Amino acid sequence: MRFEIDMPPPHTFNPDERNAIYRAIAERRDVRRGFLPQPLPEDLLTRLLAAAHSAPSVGLMQPTRFLVIRSRGIRQQIHEAFLAANQHAQGIYTGERHQQYADLKLEGILEAPQNLCILCDPSSLQGHGLGRQTMPETALYSTVCAIQNLWLAARAEGVGVGWVSILSPDRLRAILHIPPHIVPVAYLCLGFVESFGAGPELERAGWEHRRPLHEVVFEDTYPIPVEAEAPGS
Amino acid sequence: MRFEIDMPPPHTFNPDERNAIYRAIAERRDVRRGFLPQPLPEDLLTRLLAAAHSAPSVGLMQPTRFLVIRSRGIRQQIHEAFLAANQHAQGIYTGERHQQYADLKLEGILEAPQNLCILCDPSSLQGHGLGRQTMPETALYSTVCAIQNLWLAARAEGVGVGWVSILSPDRLRAILHIPPHIVPVAYLCLGFVESFGAGPELERAGWEHRRPLHEVVFEDTYPIPVEAEAPGS
Repeated sequence: MRFEIDMPPPHTFNPDERNAIYRAIAERRDVRRGFLPQPLPEDLLTRLLAAAHSAPSVGLMQPTRFLVIRSRGIRQQIHEAFLAANQHAQGIYTGERHQQYADLKLEGILEAPQNLCILCDPSSLQGHGLGRQTMPETALYSTVCAIQNLWLAARAEGVGVGWVSILSPDRLRAILHIPPHIVPVAYLCLGFVESFGAGPELERAGWEHRRPLHEVVFEDTYPIPVEAEAPGS
Repeated sequence: MRFEIDMPPPHTFNPDERNAIYRAIAERRDVRRGFLPQPLPEDLLTRLLAAAHSAPSVGLMQPTRFLVIRSRGIRQQIHEAFLAANQHAQGIYTGERHQQYADLKLEGILEAPQNLCILCDPSSLQGHGLGRQTMPETALYSTVCAIQNLWLAARAEGVGVGWVSILSPDRLRAILHIPPHIVPVAYLCLGFVESFGAGPELERAGWEHRRPLHEVVFEDTYPIPVEAEAPGS
């Protein structure tokens, strides 16, 4: 099978479809504010979970498990766990950045009508261990691929997703009855939103800026840092 | 801001765009065979890397680094590292599954004109540590989100991606000069392909089957396994 270099290669999506993929990637946001109170329709939530479930997984092990959390009582316990972890986190910053951190809104646990705890079962025998002898961490990585599938599908559905990592895994385990062999990978807030920001919230708040692509792409091997080169070389 | 429950919520993509997202998610494959010899045009590769680079990252730390590997000599060294790891991996299977494993094609390192090693720098100060006090593993997870962005964009561009995890991280480090503070997360083979399979290759080869979604979704808390319940409860 051959094709000319100026022709689109086979199996390419049409331009509108391709633009839709890049649009979802560009307009996806980590949403922490502006969640609307309407719960997600069941069929929409199922589409999002199915998108996650069809992510790549090492050896086809599909280790990802989903807790759909609507209970207000449980979300309140999680919110308290967030407040404790966040107070501790704020303590590492001093001066202007301490106040800047305090002003950030970092979660929507109670505003979002549904939360989602995404778990990994690295002990699952599905897949018969294929691909996990040298890099067992690929079970966890499979679960993260599922999260990103869900995040992009959610953007296309007009659903905001916020990942809350300022939580003690031990508290998560206790509140959600997660057994020792299961790993909590992500805690997400999910819901329709007032708006999607034009850029990342942390950039708009002046916390950090995105760096240009060329700074993170290298050819063939990892570059020797400039300061490590011999003088005059 | 309110909307009626039967109306599409605001910020939703139009149906064609939404279908394109779900199409990419459904038709994405882990490709190990059928790579075409034409190298990817530079602008296409840049679009894929930019898609990866715009993935969510904890605290906007953007810890992902990319090695674009075109050198045949380096790919040959990686391929030898794969063969060694794969021989060892095959040794854990006995009987029929041993032969079935031997018959699987698990990588396209030399066929794909470009490989991509995707790395994480968890020591990066970008983002000022926000979101990583209680769950420092979110730096690595950010890098996996970048991989899944690239994987979906690649499908829309007609580009096959195969993730090779049957590699010793130490061998990867040695061949690619990866310093100790940088984590190799994924080694990918990338290229135009003869075809995308209708289903996962491991399913078509009879190695494993996908499980239905309802088996992995739970409400509010992790379920108590049936065998752990008290008799008569």
